[in-house]
Amino acid sequence: MSNLITPRTLSGFRDYLPAVMLAREEVLRRAREVYRSYGFTPIDTPACESLDVLLGKGGDESDKLVYRVLSARGDKAEMGLRFDLTVPFARFSAQYINELGTPFKRYAMGPVWRGERPGQGRYREFWQCDFDTIGTTSNAADIETALVINDLFTAIGFDKFEIRVNNRKLLNGLLEAVGLRDKSVIVLRAIDKLDKIGRDAVLAEMTNQEVSLLAARNVLDFTQLRGADALDKLEEVLPIVETVLKPRLKETKENIAGGQQLIEEGIAQLRELLAVTKAAGVPEERIKIDLSIARGLDYYTGTIYETFLTDLPGIGSVCSGGRYDNLASKYTKQVLPGVGASLGVDRLIAAMEELKHPLLTGQTTPAQVLVVNFDATRLGDYQRIARALRAACVNVEVYPDTTKKIGTQFAYAEKRGFKLAVVAGPAEFEQGVWKVKDLAKREEAAVPEAELVERIKQQV
Amino acid sequence: MSNLITPRTLSGFRDYLPAVMLAREEVLRRAREVYRSYGFTPIDTPACESLDVLLGKGGDESDKLVYRVLSARGDKAEMGLRFDLTVPFARFSAQYINELGTPFKRYAMGPVWRGERPGQGRYREFWQCDFDTIGTTSNAADIETALVINDLFTAIGFDKFEIRVNNRKLLNGLLEAVGLRDKSVIVLRAIDKLDKIGRDAVLAEMTNQEVSLLAARNVLDFTQLRGADALDKLEEVLPIVETVLKPRLKETKENIAGGQQLIEEGIAQLRELLAVTKAAGVPEERIKIDLSIARGLDYYTGTIYETFLTDLPGIGSVCSGGRYDNLASKYTKQVLPGVGASLGVDRLIAAMEELKHPLLTGQTTPAQVLVVNFDATRLGDYQRIARALRAACVNVEVYPDTTKKIGTQFAYAEKRGFKLAVVAGPAEFEQGVWKVKDLAKREEAAVPEAELVERIKQQV
Repeated sequence: MSNLITPRTLSGFRDYLPAVMLAREEVLRRAREVYRSYGFTPIDTPACESLDVLLGKGGDESDKLVYRVLSARGDKAEMGLRFDLTVPFARFSAQYINELGTPFKRYAMGPVWRGERPGQGRYREFWQCDFDTIGTTSNAADIETALVINDLFTAIGFDKFEIRVNNRKLLNGLLEAVGLRDKSVIVLRAIDKLDKIGRDAVLAEMTNQEVSLLAARNVLDFTQLRGADALDKLEEVLPIVETVLKPRLKETKENIAGGQQLIEEGIAQLRELLAVTKAAGVPEERIKIDLSIARGLDYYTGTIYETFLTDLPGIGSVCSGGRYDNLASKYTKQVLPGVGASLGVDRLIAAMEELKHPLLTGQTTPAQVLVVNFDATRLGDYQRIARALRAACVNVEVYPDTTKKIGTQFAYAEKRGFKLAVVAGPAEFEQGVWKVKDLAKREEAAVPEAELVERIKQQV
Repeated sequence: MSNLITPRTLSGFRDYLPAVMLAREEVLRRAREVYRSYGFTPIDTPACESLDVLLGKGGDESDKLVYRVLSARGDKAEMGLRFDLTVPFARFSAQYINELGTPFKRYAMGPVWRGERPGQGRYREFWQCDFDTIGTTSNAADIETALVINDLFTAIGFDKFEIRVNNRKLLNGLLEAVGLRDKSVIVLRAIDKLDKIGRDAVLAEMTNQEVSLLAARNVLDFTQLRGADALDKLEEVLPIVETVLKPRLKETKENIAGGQQLIEEGIAQLRELLAVTKAAGVPEERIKIDLSIARGLDYYTGTIYETFLTDLPGIGSVCSGGRYDNLASKYTKQVLPGVGASLGVDRLIAAMEELKHPLLTGQTTPAQVLVVNFDATRLGDYQRIARALRAACVNVEVYPDTTKKIGTQFAYAEKRGFKLAVVAGPAEFEQGVWKVKDLAKREEAAVPEAELVERIKQQV
C-alpha cells in the first residue's frame, strides 16, 4: 500500500558518505594548494556544453559515451554533459585566450560523465582534477609538470610513488626513421598487448600487418628500455638506425634524418627533465624514464607522464598527461601548444581506501570536540564556549538535542570519532570549570574555564 | 571555408574566469571551514538522479524546470539533473540514515540545474552550498543555524549584514486561531505583494477571496511587526484573538487554543534564539525578528531565515532556510525533522562584484612571486629557489618560456597581479644574490640567497 519511492543511486553513480568525502575534500584541498603554489589559477566551465562543441567530427567511439541533455521544455537534445575537462578547456581557451594572454596556466576540478558500462571502481560520474600550461612549447613547462606531480603526491601523503616519463618524439622518431610512421597505430596497439600476449605474439601481430620482422624487433626492444640508463642505452643503439636499418629498409635519407632529429630532441628534453628535477630537489628514484608508456595514440606529441603507487601498481596510473601540439584547433586557428596532467581523484581514493591511507581514518566528523548538551537552560554557555574554541581553530559541535541522555551523547561522539567531549552541569558551572573527557583514553579532568581553550588546543 | 566550431557557452550557462573563480574558491573554502567548525560533515551526491526520485507526484511547476538526461546509448530519459541539493539530500537521508545515525549534520556544495529563462544574474547552472541538521526537533539546532549564518558572512569578510528570522508557527497559529488555516496560500500570496501593490489592494485581494476585512487587517498588521520589540508587541496584541476575534469569527475554541499554543511556541523559540545568540557573542543588531518573511508556502514549519547585505538589500536574500517537519517522506516512513539553510553562491559573488569586495581584487593568479626565466641554463636554480619558497608557503611561478625577453615577463607579472618578481642572471649567480623587485612600488633590491626566503615572506 506504500507509495514510497525507493531511495537509490543510478547504476554507475555513487554517493560520497562522510568518511570518504572528508578524504576527497582533503585530497582536493591539497591538490589545489600545490597547483596554486606553482601559479596555476582556477577556472570553471559548465557541466553542459553544446553538442557541436563536445562531439568529434563524427563517429568517434568516445562520442557514444556522451550523455545528451534535453532542453527543459522540449525534446531537443542540443547539449551534453562534458566527458572530460580537456574539451571544455580547449573551448574555453579558444574563447578567452586573447583576454587571458599566454602563457596561461590553469587548473580545474570537477565531475565528468561517461555512459560506460559500470564496473569495479569504474563510474559513470567521476572527478577529474587537471592542470595545464598552454601557449608555450618550452620544455620548462614539461619539467614543471613532473615537479607538480611530485609535490602533489607528496602533499597527499604518499612517499612511495613513481612518475614514469617518456617522450613521444622518441618512438615517433624511430617509426619515422624505419619507415613505419604510417603504421604507428598498428605498432602501438601491438606493443600495448605485450604483458598479455607475450613477445612472439606481439611480433607476429606486427609482421602480419606488413611490418618487417627486423623493424618490429627494433621497435619492440626500443620500447622496453627503462630506468636510469635508458637514455644512454638508447644513444648506444641509435647508430643501428644509421648502419643497419637504413640500407635494409630502403628508406629515404630525409626520413632517417628527420627521425633521428626527433629522437635527439626527445633525448635532450628528457635529460633536461632529469637534471632540473634533481637540481630542484626531487629524489632521483621518483622519476623514471620508461619508453613503454604511450598514453593515447594521436593527442600527445612530446613528454608523457604516468604515475604509479609503489604499493598498488595494479590499479594503474593515478595521474597522467603529456604535451600536445595544439589544444583547440577545433575552435580557433590560433595554435595553442601545451602540457598538462590529470589526477584521477576517484581511482586515487579507491587506492587510498585499499592502502588504509591515514586520510581515511573512519572518522565521520570534521570536529574534534563535542560539547555535551547536559542542561537545556545552559545552551548559551555551551555555544559561548564553542565559539571561543572555534576562534582558536578548534572544530566544535554542540550536541543539538537537549532531551538525550549523556550516555547517548557519548555514544554518538565515539561512533563519529570525536576526540574530546566537554561537559558542564550545575555543579561545574558553580565551580567555574568544564569537564574535559578524552574519549579514546577514557580520561576525564576538570579544567577552569579560563584555561579551557589552551588545554583543549593541546589535546586535539 | 573554415570548419571551425564557434567556441561559446550555452544560453544561461557561464564560465568562471580566474579573477572570479579565485573569489568563488575562497568563498567556498571559508564556508567549508565555518560549516566544519560546527561539526557539519561533507557529503556528495551525483548530478544525475532517477526521474522518479527527482520529480514531484505530478504536475508541479518545478518539474518543468528539470533537465532530462538521455541514457548514453539510447533515447530513454529516465534520469535528470538535480535542481537543488535538498531533494538529493532527502533521498540520501532515506537511504543511509540508519547507518549514519541521528542527529546528522551535513553540508553539500555543488552546481544545480534549472531550465529557467536566463536573465540578469539568473543562470541555468548555479552553485548551492547547503547545511542541515536532521533527526532532531530541538530548537538548539535552529539557534545554531543562525550562528552558522553569522559566522559564515563574517568569515567571507562582511560585517554589514542582517539575518532576518521568523517562525512559521506564528503566522500558522494566527491563521488557525482566526479560522483561515485553509486560506493560508491566498493570504500569503496577497501579503507577499504588499511592497508592489500597497495595503488597500492587499486587503481587497483577501476580502475578494472570502476573508473578512477584520481578519485580513489583523493578519496583515501581524506580518508587519519587526525589530527588537516585535515579540513584545505580538504578545500585546495576542489578547485580541481571545477577546475580539473569537466572538466575531465564531471559531471553535479548539482552533483558537491550538492557534494560540502555536503562537506561544513560536514566540518562545524566537526568544530563546535571540537570548542564546546574544550569550554566544553575536552582535544583537545582526539578528532581526521580521514577521513578514515567509519562504515557501508549504515546506517550512518553524524558524525561517533570510540574510540581507546592508549595502545591497536589493539583490534579495543571499542565505535562506528554515525548519521542516519531515525531510524525506517521499522515500521513507522514518520521520526526519530538520533545519538548515543554503548559501546562494552565485548571487553572493555577483553582490561582491558590485560591492568591490576585497576578495575580488582583479588579481588573476594565486601566486605572489614570479621567478623570471632569464637564463635557460639556470632552470634548475630557478625551480630550486621556487621550491624553497613554496616550502615556506609562498606561491611561486617560474615563468615557463625561456625565449621571452625580461620586459615581456615583467609585463606578464603586472597584468596578472604578482606582487614580487625575482631575477637572477650570470652576474647575480656569481655574487650569490637574487634581485627582488616589488612590482607595485617599482623598487628593486639585491638579496643574498641565504636571506631570500625570509625576505620574501616579509614582503608578500
